[in-house]
Amino acid sequence: VKLRPFRLSPLLLASAVLVSAGAAAAQQAPKPEQLIKWRQSNYQVIAWNVGRIKASLDGSYDKEAVIKEANVISAIAGSGLGALYTAGTETGTGWHETRARPELFTDKRVAELSGDFVREAGELVRVANGGDPAAVKQQFGKLTKTCKACHDDYRAKE
Amino acid sequence: VKLRPFRLSPLLLASAVLVSAGAAAAQQAPKPEQLIKWRQSNYQVIAWNVGRIKASLDGSYDKEAVIKEANVISAIAGSGLGALYTAGTETGTGWHETRARPELFTDKRVAELSGDFVREAGELVRVANGGDPAAVKQQFGKLTKTCKACHDDYRAKE
Repeated sequence: VKLRPFRLSPLLLASAVLVSAGAAAAQQAPKPEQLIKWRQSNYQVIAWNVGRIKASLDGSYDKEAVIKEANVISAIAGSGLGALYTAGTETGTGWHETRARPELFTDKRVAELSGDFVREAGELVRVANGGDPAAVKQQFGKLTKTCKACHDDYRAKE
Repeated sequence: VKLRPFRLSPLLLASAVLVSAGAAAAQQAPKPEQLIKWRQSNYQVIAWNVGRIKASLDGSYDKEAVIKEANVISAIAGSGLGALYTAGTETGTGWHETRARPELFTDKRVAELSGDFVREAGELVRVANGGDPAAVKQQFGKLTKTCKACHDDYRAKE
């Protein structure tokens, strides 16, 4: 038995390319609702870890836990959250209606505030590794100030 | 004018202590709904970063981005997610109804699977820093296998 070479019709090939391009585009451009869910999820994870660090500072200090918690905040801060604020996500509902204000998408100052957040979160990891609760408390205050700076101007009041 | 020293009645003092103890307890024991939201948020953030690494492997590879994305997954994996699976959270609704199966809260094997996840995620960070896409692809496969191992047995089908 002689095997016939497999031949792809130009039409089939064109379809395959289109389908594959479509799949790639779908992968590269999730729906606004999904993007908003992801950004809300990122801030929820940050909030959980901020709360745990606060509990450690207010109660009995757990050095190893605080290092891990600070690591999460810093890793998320540096992970390019801006990719979740694409055009089309200015309004809409993820897990809940977005509280992002329109100015968040236009003000040049946002990049600066975002940089402050990344920097202070990284510094918290460094200080947490030192293990001095008083120093961690001080740096934790600097970090949460960067959260507040952005929320004050760019998050709608509840 | 002579200032009268401020005197705290025992009743007021007792109330203050109770309120403050209540506040501490509230901080230490968030509601099941909040715990479930946090755990769903953690997995959403993991999924977002897994998707971004996959896109990098399928498209044009971005070494620095993959390092950051792997860092988030690893930091979350090592952050003590078990704290979000306390008694009372076996069923319930966070952002959506929990898909955790009852066995997740009882099987001893879960700790082992969880350890596999933490280990492979940490290894992905190491490999990502090396910057070889083929090696990252291989390690990424090992990591997602640990996700699947847990989902197969401990997450309800949709």
